[in-house]
Amino acid sequence: MAITGVCTPKGFRAAGLHCGIRKNQTKKDLALVLADAPCAAAAVYTQNKVYGAPITVTRAHLANGVAQAMLCNSGNANTCNADGVEKAETLCDMLARAAGIDAGDVIIASTGVIGQPLTLDPIQAAMPSLVAAASAQGGEDAAQAIMTTDRAIKQASAVCTVDGVPVTLGAMAKGSGMIAPNMATLLCFITTDAAITPPMLQKALTEAVADTFNMLIVDGDTSTNDMVSALASGLAGNPVIDRDGPALAAFTQAMRGMAEGLTRAMAKDGEGATKLVTCHVTGAPDAAIARAVARAVIASPLCKTAMFGADANWGRVLCAIGYAPGDFSVQHVAVDIASAAGRVAVCRSGRGVPFSEEEAKTILNPDEVTWHIDLGLGVAAATAWGCDLSYEYVRINGDYRS
Amino acid sequence: MAITGVCTPKGFRAAGLHCGIRKNQTKKDLALVLADAPCAAAAVYTQNKVYGAPITVTRAHLANGVAQAMLCNSGNANTCNADGVEKAETLCDMLARAAGIDAGDVIIASTGVIGQPLTLDPIQAAMPSLVAAASAQGGEDAAQAIMTTDRAIKQASAVCTVDGVPVTLGAMAKGSGMIAPNMATLLCFITTDAAITPPMLQKALTEAVADTFNMLIVDGDTSTNDMVSALASGLAGNPVIDRDGPALAAFTQAMRGMAEGLTRAMAKDGEGATKLVTCHVTGAPDAAIARAVARAVIASPLCKTAMFGADANWGRVLCAIGYAPGDFSVQHVAVDIASAAGRVAVCRSGRGVPFSEEEAKTILNPDEVTWHIDLGLGVAAATAWGCDLSYEYVRINGDYRS
Repeated sequence: MAITGVCTPKGFRAAGLHCGIRKNQTKKDLALVLADAPCAAAAVYTQNKVYGAPITVTRAHLANGVAQAMLCNSGNANTCNADGVEKAETLCDMLARAAGIDAGDVIIASTGVIGQPLTLDPIQAAMPSLVAAASAQGGEDAAQAIMTTDRAIKQASAVCTVDGVPVTLGAMAKGSGMIAPNMATLLCFITTDAAITPPMLQKALTEAVADTFNMLIVDGDTSTNDMVSALASGLAGNPVIDRDGPALAAFTQAMRGMAEGLTRAMAKDGEGATKLVTCHVTGAPDAAIARAVARAVIASPLCKTAMFGADANWGRVLCAIGYAPGDFSVQHVAVDIASAAGRVAVCRSGRGVPFSEEEAKTILNPDEVTWHIDLGLGVAAATAWGCDLSYEYVRINGDYRS
Repeated sequence: MAITGVCTPKGFRAAGLHCGIRKNQTKKDLALVLADAPCAAAAVYTQNKVYGAPITVTRAHLANGVAQAMLCNSGNANTCNADGVEKAETLCDMLARAAGIDAGDVIIASTGVIGQPLTLDPIQAAMPSLVAAASAQGGEDAAQAIMTTDRAIKQASAVCTVDGVPVTLGAMAKGSGMIAPNMATLLCFITTDAAITPPMLQKALTEAVADTFNMLIVDGDTSTNDMVSALASGLAGNPVIDRDGPALAAFTQAMRGMAEGLTRAMAKDGEGATKLVTCHVTGAPDAAIARAVARAVIASPLCKTAMFGADANWGRVLCAIGYAPGDFSVQHVAVDIASAAGRVAVCRSGRGVPFSEEEAKTILNPDEVTWHIDLGLGVAAATAWGCDLSYEYVRINGDYRS
């Protein structure tokens, strides 16, 4: 059993099992995170105009800033279905009855194929065992149950000190395709034992997501169902974080660090990925341009295939920089490639500089590589994460529904 | 020899040969289109902030609306090089001396790898033979010489009647990767024997490109070097088109039709493509939203891989519609898939409708398929063209420079 994840903070139990939404009986498809008591709650949601029924229901449930459980199925997105909202509400009712909590305190999520009606029977049949199985050791089962095309289980935890009191955060996440940042573009469930008000929890979450999950691109497709939510049990015993200040800053920093780790894990597990690719932009005139440039390079199919081929084709990086949104000069652009195997300059003042192709190939061979881009215009910086584009991405997505 | 192309209109000769920029001696790499006399000229250019030296030079040369020749090499983009502009100017001088024309009347273009210095020697050595070879039968050689990863030669022609006088247009184009519309994102050289002023030629060209080349996406990467240019010899003998009116409309319509044919040819020849995919959007509240939706669906890697797998995964289409820029409702969306093998409804009012997966697979099997999307909100329409995403795209671009 994992010792890090949604059950690491005090006050949370979790479970995950196979209920039958998926045909493959060895793949868990239903996850639960249950808090001992109602928690301060917050979430950020996909900005896609087409969004899943679970998003509609969760948004309504979190209007009061309180929730006690997270329920998530994989294998079906419950999106673009006529009866989606009704079924999502029914799922919350089932859990509420089985767990003795308020249906309005359930965060509901679904992930999988869009546009196929969700069958409730297997979930209804499994609900009592799901609730009974919830324990402090259930985090890994839950993390397995939310996976779709993910190859790796994604869990994390973090600790920080708030007014002298140790506070713990935990999380599980899924995501390896249909990923492009737009406020929230994947599923991540965060728990913490911090005592914090819902508005401050929302603020910490929004800030942490902006620099992490929102800077992740696998394929450029912003999903319909993605959500990052957080529950805070308050059991750490810290003075309640109820305003801006050092306590909120420390908490936000811990959440950002945890989210960055999960972001990197998702990039590395991107559909078909053989490499984690990081793009670090410095010297930008403002943060928006820094982010736009980092995201353009990470999203470019031509930069991605070059990374798959370990080809230092920096001209494609310049091309992506040039079409990144925003009005800025490209005269001073400097580009380096780097990895554990070394670092080499490939472009200065927007023009190529001589470098050894052999050395560059060696640097691009490891499974984690970085483009360092300095625009030479200012002091703003940003980092984006993604992966290469391989044959395997095409195989996975040419054959997803079967 | 081709009977359709840049030499179809009166007053143009062309040639294409292998000069040695490319190592492969069987691949032509230098193209020339030469007019008998100075022509009215116009062009649209890539909007990438990083653009090739040939773009800088051509823009300056076309400031007076007059040109007499188009010179284009493949194998090297002459972009992001310290001496790029100087070398592009030198190439124009070489051609001017060899052909007895003004260097300021040369439209210069380069396409290929970005950021590698261009070697002028092989071009200089070949220039006399290139000019000597220019003939009314040289259109196909020229069209071959501008190709990079293109598999098919792309030529077209069109005829229209201007004030009772037959006017002819011809064109050659290249493009199969690094294609995403942003004013002009490929190379296309258009000739015509119409008598038309440079401002009216520019207007016709800009309008024709907006509905055709600008609605083409292969991979979402807007190239640094792309340009569509036009030369009008005036030899058709029509009354000069010098204002808005039926004559300009007829000419623009002919150019648009020719450009649409080349756009479809480029989509079909997209890097690694096995299918030409068209997205036809109707019922949009305005033209901008119609275009944004059509482009989002065509650009989506998940929609592209689904087409490669002949999978009617319409949920991915809804997802792409939902993240298309613009503020509009998705409540009334209707989606059909169609091809020569039939047509089937897969979504109504934003929700799935029952359909036969077997029938859908049959419809998606041919090498030309169409998504019909009706937003149910207004009367604006748009069409975008692209292709599927295959293993071959990854192979080509993981290994481009070697």
